[in-house]
Amino acid sequence: MQNTNYAKYIAIMQKIADVQNASSLLNWDQETYMPPKGAAFRAQQLSTLAGIAHELATSTELGVLLTELSKDDSLAEKEKRNIKKSLKNYNDNKKYTTEFVQDLSKTISEAFQAWQKAKETNDFSLYAPKLEKLVELKRKECELLGYTGHPYDAMLDQYEPGAKTVDLEKLFADVRSQLVAFVKQIAAKPQNNDAFMFGFYDKDKQWDVGIDLLKQMGYDFDAGRQDISSHPFTTNFSCQDVRVTTRINQNDLNEMIWSCIHEGGHALYEQGLLPSEYGLPSGEYISLGIHESQSRLWENNVGRSLNYWKANFKTLQKAFPENLEKISVEDFYKAMNIVKPSLIRTSADELTYHFHVLIRFEIEKALIEGKIQVNELPAYWNSKYKEYLGIDVPSDKQGVLQDIHWSHGSFGYFPTYSLGSFYAAQFFAQAKKEIPNLENQLEQGNMLNLLSWLREKVHKHGKYYTAEELCVEITGEKLNFNYFMEYAKVKYKWLYQL
Amino acid sequence: MQNTNYAKYIAIMQKIADVQNASSLLNWDQETYMPPKGAAFRAQQLSTLAGIAHELATSTELGVLLTELSKDDSLAEKEKRNIKKSLKNYNDNKKYTTEFVQDLSKTISEAFQAWQKAKETNDFSLYAPKLEKLVELKRKECELLGYTGHPYDAMLDQYEPGAKTVDLEKLFADVRSQLVAFVKQIAAKPQNNDAFMFGFYDKDKQWDVGIDLLKQMGYDFDAGRQDISSHPFTTNFSCQDVRVTTRINQNDLNEMIWSCIHEGGHALYEQGLLPSEYGLPSGEYISLGIHESQSRLWENNVGRSLNYWKANFKTLQKAFPENLEKISVEDFYKAMNIVKPSLIRTSADELTYHFHVLIRFEIEKALIEGKIQVNELPAYWNSKYKEYLGIDVPSDKQGVLQDIHWSHGSFGYFPTYSLGSFYAAQFFAQAKKEIPNLENQLEQGNMLNLLSWLREKVHKHGKYYTAEELCVEITGEKLNFNYFMEYAKVKYKWLYQL
Repeated sequence: MQNTNYAKYIAIMQKIADVQNASSLLNWDQETYMPPKGAAFRAQQLSTLAGIAHELATSTELGVLLTELSKDDSLAEKEKRNIKKSLKNYNDNKKYTTEFVQDLSKTISEAFQAWQKAKETNDFSLYAPKLEKLVELKRKECELLGYTGHPYDAMLDQYEPGAKTVDLEKLFADVRSQLVAFVKQIAAKPQNNDAFMFGFYDKDKQWDVGIDLLKQMGYDFDAGRQDISSHPFTTNFSCQDVRVTTRINQNDLNEMIWSCIHEGGHALYEQGLLPSEYGLPSGEYISLGIHESQSRLWENNVGRSLNYWKANFKTLQKAFPENLEKISVEDFYKAMNIVKPSLIRTSADELTYHFHVLIRFEIEKALIEGKIQVNELPAYWNSKYKEYLGIDVPSDKQGVLQDIHWSHGSFGYFPTYSLGSFYAAQFFAQAKKEIPNLENQLEQGNMLNLLSWLREKVHKHGKYYTAEELCVEITGEKLNFNYFMEYAKVKYKWLYQL
Repeated sequence: MQNTNYAKYIAIMQKIADVQNASSLLNWDQETYMPPKGAAFRAQQLSTLAGIAHELATSTELGVLLTELSKDDSLAEKEKRNIKKSLKNYNDNKKYTTEFVQDLSKTISEAFQAWQKAKETNDFSLYAPKLEKLVELKRKECELLGYTGHPYDAMLDQYEPGAKTVDLEKLFADVRSQLVAFVKQIAAKPQNNDAFMFGFYDKDKQWDVGIDLLKQMGYDFDAGRQDISSHPFTTNFSCQDVRVTTRINQNDLNEMIWSCIHEGGHALYEQGLLPSEYGLPSGEYISLGIHESQSRLWENNVGRSLNYWKANFKTLQKAFPENLEKISVEDFYKAMNIVKPSLIRTSADELTYHFHVLIRFEIEKALIEGKIQVNELPAYWNSKYKEYLGIDVPSDKQGVLQDIHWSHGSFGYFPTYSLGSFYAAQFFAQAKKEIPNLENQLEQGNMLNLLSWLREKVHKHGKYYTAEELCVEITGEKLNFNYFMEYAKVKYKWLYQL
């Protein structure tokens, strides 16, 4: 009897996954190949599929099945965990009233349009009333979903299941106390040169280099592909079709390199999930923080290391002799690791990046708590940038209006970016302990043992563990900021001769 | 009240269209960009979406709504016709039992695999048992759907609504009596030279030429795009996103040219449907025959004319001077219009093509009538090729196994190919009467008046008329094979100096 029920559960979950994966393809196409006039009906088609997926995910049939299965002791441990997670999702979904969902979706659509207009014209006041409405709805959403500690926990939980505001406060207190001082030390030193990164780099040659880097990481092109889009992203329609996109700037070598390696890291996680678990929690990534740990581990711990470029710099020199033949691999390593406070999060270095996140975390928390109002945001934002990064924000366009996230209603998302880097540092430290000669292998361009280790330790488990459990399972302890600081200190002491 | 119902009807129809268009995108991606390992889950996703679309199209809610609306006299004429057509589809869909649908879908899947294997190994016996089962199911399907005249009418009706076997018998009797004799006359004449079509033609240059030809026809690249696939096709996800694919053979200039113009003709029809009618019969093509009339009109009546190449041959010569600089436009015109009996339908010339269709029509009819058995097919096929085309079929691979259609369960589809050419000739004759100086415009590369005429006469009406009504509306009479024969006679008398 229980087997029949569990099989029914799998069938429903796979049906939902099929519809969601179809939506993902529609989105991928929209960002890559769709002709401009296709946009209007595409939006309608996406909305229809979202509605169908929601109906399936909140059906009484599924609810009854999950409730029965949650009492079924004969299930294996993995099955029990799947049911537990699916039941939580089901119950969360059921907490939303149709009225609330419609109100939220309408407000998001208006807020997004207002944000675009406001950013274009550098006029925050165009966006403020819609954002205000959105914050109000998000506060309502916290109450709908419920929480035991801080209301912001309900926001975090959507992207980082189980994460608590109180823990993030401690974590970001460490960031503040340790990283601010460290970045000041660096700022006191002479800056390294990266002018040669901004010469002319032919688009097609950059493309070829990017493909080679992905192949070297172990990205499977039989189960994926790379295309061009205006904002790089990773998407998947199963673990056997995981696609990345990149962006190429002929006057900045950084964009292609870091988007390839970063998205490649995300994609390796998705390709490492198990096809047998398709549609189930055990076939899904744990959280955005763990997802980001995979992209950041490849981008920062591997890609921004000297070893990595000892293996790959010659290829780059061969592709771009005019730009790079007189540059040493050490110069190149220094150029890609310039630390410098800046205005825009997405182009920040790997240290000051976390101040950008910290500021957004503090603002989001204050908004949800009702401690600040939307109209105070620009001034509050600017004062924070002065405080943590020591810079003046010349315009809201380069300040509070720079990110798309809030206009999409994504509150609680930003912290996962920092969590990703910190998990990455901790996992990579462990990998170095467990894989003999890892650094040496990377220097030879051999990434496969590292990939196997990640497959075994992280990818194949899907959502079997929570992020915290996984971290303990792999490293023997919970997330610990010291790993990141240790990594940063060793690396930047050499780079800036501290 | 009736407005509310009609609005509900539109909403359901658009929801069905959204799901079907999402499927179409999944199919497009499968043929163009999907990595190989993506195939298995893609098949499952397509099957899930097909199931959802079928559920929506056969829901009691829709049935009740259509029945009520079909009695509503206050509807406008266009609305009434939409309801009538949707109700017919609904009733047809409801005639299928779940058991029959599952049996058919399983048999098709097995027959398709068996056909692939049989074609690969040139062994009809591997395919025969599955095809036999399929024919049996198709005969059952005729009974399920019902018919008033010939059982084969029920098959035809799925692709060419309203078409009757008895009319096709008359039509193909004309084809037989007039075209067989005419092709014999041509065969008695010396053959024209087309060797230069098979030199080396660079892929990228061919691609550029194809894009230019599409633009000249009026294909809107803001509402579509062209990509490469192994079999050229046209697909759409709304009339504002209509895509074509092409195939390029570096040793045969014909493939790219004819696929671009042919698929371009299909695409212009879809781009000419009205966005306001999205999801409704009034926003859909009439029938496969009328669809093919649009592709064939552009491919044959326009593209294979001397006028067309007077406008475009210079561009081609510029792109491929080594191949074409010594060739005159008349030589080129002769080369692209070689008439010669051959084995393979898809590469046949525009005259002998119809013998291929005629043979398939006679075989399908005989199978449905039970007059021949599947195991007799190869011998029957070969005798027909001898009779109509005067050629011996050296292997089943090049004979009865060449086409995919039957393995997909598509019986009643082939005749629409001939209908398309015959409608095209009749429509084009009318266009020449109504558009002053049309031939002259084409010679100047000006296709826009012809496109406007087709938009006005055919495209914008969607399914408002049946194929027969449309033909009478445009030309004042029903489909008349004489227009095709007249076109053929004038053209080929000059080409072969008859």
